[in-house]
Amino acid sequence: MACLTGLWMIRYIWNLAIMKYRATTFKSWLFAIVIGIAGLPEPGTAADEASKALLVDGARLNATMEHMKTFGMSATGGSTRVAFSEANRDALSYLSSLMTESGLMPRIDVGGNLVGRREGRIAGLAPIVSGSHIDTVPNGGHYDGIVGVMSAIEVARSLHEADIILDHPLEVIVWTNEEGGKTGSRSFNGSVQDKEFDLLSLGDKTIGDGLRYLGGKPESLSQNLRQAGDISSYVELHIEQGAILDQQGISIGVVEGVVGIRRWNITIDGFANHAGTTPMDQRQDALYAAALLIAEVRQIITDAPGRQVGTVGRIQAFPGVPNVIAGGVSMSLEIRDLDMDKIATLFERIRGFAKTLSAQTDTTIAIDQYYESPAAITDERIKSIIQNSADALGLSAMHMPSGAGHDSQSLAGITPIGMIFVPSKDGISHAPGEFTGPQQITNGANVLLQSIIRMDEKIN
Amino acid sequence: MACLTGLWMIRYIWNLAIMKYRATTFKSWLFAIVIGIAGLPEPGTAADEASKALLVDGARLNATMEHMKTFGMSATGGSTRVAFSEANRDALSYLSSLMTESGLMPRIDVGGNLVGRREGRIAGLAPIVSGSHIDTVPNGGHYDGIVGVMSAIEVARSLHEADIILDHPLEVIVWTNEEGGKTGSRSFNGSVQDKEFDLLSLGDKTIGDGLRYLGGKPESLSQNLRQAGDISSYVELHIEQGAILDQQGISIGVVEGVVGIRRWNITIDGFANHAGTTPMDQRQDALYAAALLIAEVRQIITDAPGRQVGTVGRIQAFPGVPNVIAGGVSMSLEIRDLDMDKIATLFERIRGFAKTLSAQTDTTIAIDQYYESPAAITDERIKSIIQNSADALGLSAMHMPSGAGHDSQSLAGITPIGMIFVPSKDGISHAPGEFTGPQQITNGANVLLQSIIRMDEKIN
Repeated sequence: MACLTGLWMIRYIWNLAIMKYRATTFKSWLFAIVIGIAGLPEPGTAADEASKALLVDGARLNATMEHMKTFGMSATGGSTRVAFSEANRDALSYLSSLMTESGLMPRIDVGGNLVGRREGRIAGLAPIVSGSHIDTVPNGGHYDGIVGVMSAIEVARSLHEADIILDHPLEVIVWTNEEGGKTGSRSFNGSVQDKEFDLLSLGDKTIGDGLRYLGGKPESLSQNLRQAGDISSYVELHIEQGAILDQQGISIGVVEGVVGIRRWNITIDGFANHAGTTPMDQRQDALYAAALLIAEVRQIITDAPGRQVGTVGRIQAFPGVPNVIAGGVSMSLEIRDLDMDKIATLFERIRGFAKTLSAQTDTTIAIDQYYESPAAITDERIKSIIQNSADALGLSAMHMPSGAGHDSQSLAGITPIGMIFVPSKDGISHAPGEFTGPQQITNGANVLLQSIIRMDEKIN
Repeated sequence: MACLTGLWMIRYIWNLAIMKYRATTFKSWLFAIVIGIAGLPEPGTAADEASKALLVDGARLNATMEHMKTFGMSATGGSTRVAFSEANRDALSYLSSLMTESGLMPRIDVGGNLVGRREGRIAGLAPIVSGSHIDTVPNGGHYDGIVGVMSAIEVARSLHEADIILDHPLEVIVWTNEEGGKTGSRSFNGSVQDKEFDLLSLGDKTIGDGLRYLGGKPESLSQNLRQAGDISSYVELHIEQGAILDQQGISIGVVEGVVGIRRWNITIDGFANHAGTTPMDQRQDALYAAALLIAEVRQIITDAPGRQVGTVGRIQAFPGVPNVIAGGVSMSLEIRDLDMDKIATLFERIRGFAKTLSAQTDTTIAIDQYYESPAAITDERIKSIIQNSADALGLSAMHMPSGAGHDSQSLAGITPIGMIFVPSKDGISHAPGEFTGPQQITNGANVLLQSIIRMDEKIN
């Protein structure tokens, strides 16, 4: 941090004293006591005050947001900038230029991620990373992901223009193919499997071809693997994609974690029979059984205290015609919560009900998990930093889980993570009606800037 | 009826006395009293005894059933003899020959129906008609419709070989396109609309082209229109397509009527939202509302006494993916009963529930009827005749509604109708597993024969 050179060593040790006191030496403790008497850890030099007062250029940030809309604008006014599309590549090209203007050195990594790096003051420190994505679902919105990317670049630009050099390097990363499976961020934790390269993405390319199209190298993806210590910390600004902040009129969400998700296929087998000739008491109606199960899923989820959610969103009945009793039903079940044990408990209740239901309705019910994403809990220090940054900026904030998945999850096993939410109007997302106001975006970017400044100080 | 000429007038007036006594003259009553003393209405001449003892040739009948399987046998062993297919036309050609052998004069009418006629003893009487259909659903069974057609031809052949001439002409009709909309039988009641000719049938032809392919003339279809009095009576033998006779071990169903059917499209509009970010208490989940409605439909239908059935067999959820709360659901509702007023009452209960549900779940629910088929009640005299015929043959019989639709419905407004059911193994129909045993078919054909003999006597 500019002009804090003299104080750096003192603060470094002070931080060690606070965060890692069990591992520090007696000498560190001595420094800590000295500095403690001096009234730190928020030393009041003029330059520090300057960095704490630094704000992004909101007008400039929102102008870049507007420009991003031009890449893949859909007929309905939404965004169809699916991963690996021409619009995706063109937008990355624009962002690469923007990074250069903002003092970031851009490159495309093997995972097709656009990485803009700004060196830090202290040699050998791992970078602070901030990023998000710019790919959208087909006919999606202009804010999901984009707010986080444009704000992170604006944060770098603001630091650049104010000549403030962080201790740590800063990397702004535009992650590849978030909407189609978080391929870019997952290349950092090594969970991308080779067979995924052959899957069709949301556009017309396979993921492998798509990565190559953006300049990535799927065959060398393991080069992206990061170990603990390779990244100092990660923070991502994102729209909430829910209506809580909007409804409560709160500016900033301090994210407690990204909820874990488990998804199951439920298959109900009854007997397809004539809807006219089969008496009611002789039916093995798979759709009737499905109806009772869907109703009970909601009951079980809402009966338990907490903010867990459970959803049946997909259903198919076979043969699926008005004059035949459904002999089969296939449907989905999804449960999300920050606590994986709670998900397991709720699921066991649903499974227990299904067993009883099966006997009641003379059907067989099979429930098979096909997807699991563990909860990613955010770092306590980063949560405090985000809260403090919002407080310092005079912005209202509340703690909340993220019900949606994010690239930050992929980083959770590698580095301390944090997330900042800004309001989504009416909670609408993945649709052309997705909206976050210019001032709300600016607020989020300012909290991101101030959080990064504080993370640079407090997390090593 | 052979050798009953002398008694015909007496019996005719006797019947008038029983059935229509309010309209008969004093002279009729006088006859009735005279004949009553003589112990009629079952006069015991030798020839009458012979006709009452007449049986079909069961082995021959079942051999023709077997031969019919060769026209359109599907890969799974079922039948894909959809209307207007080559298999349909080839089978009609075979049946035309069989009719000729059986003493029936065959012709294709303007509705593509194959009509085999045998003249009666009394000039000017309207024909007794018996028939059914030979078209199947794709990969359907070998019995639905076919049993009625082959048995009616066998009945004619048995009469022919025994030299028994009925008073009335006898017409055996193979109705066109029953499975695809009862086009052939509906040409008799004038309800076929010109626009139907442009609809694709279950095969690859439009109904208009299909009729022409079989030798019909869609542009002259109105020639088929029948008025009251044009047909003396109609009786159709059919498989039950339900499991009641099979389960109860009863040989013959005396059909009380073909149930009325009403069908509705139900459209539920909620709000499609993120399954992770939308709290449970803020959801407008169309699929949850649908589940409660499906459960309640069954409750309402089964709470009322009677044999009515109600079914939701079709459902679609939009967008229909695991991680989005369903914003829309489209589903079917069907209710069947012999009493149309009861259907209306049950539907009103369902509509009332839907109104409450709509408020509870913050969804809008629209229910629109798109199909109505009135109930077709069978004639009391023909029901008695069928029951008496079964009794005389020593066959167990029970009265029951037909939950499935049949060509007989199309005749209900024109002439007294009756239907005879034989058991369907396990109630399976419209599938390769459809089965009725040879003896069960023979039993049905014998009841059909004896019923036609009695209808010839008793219904004019």
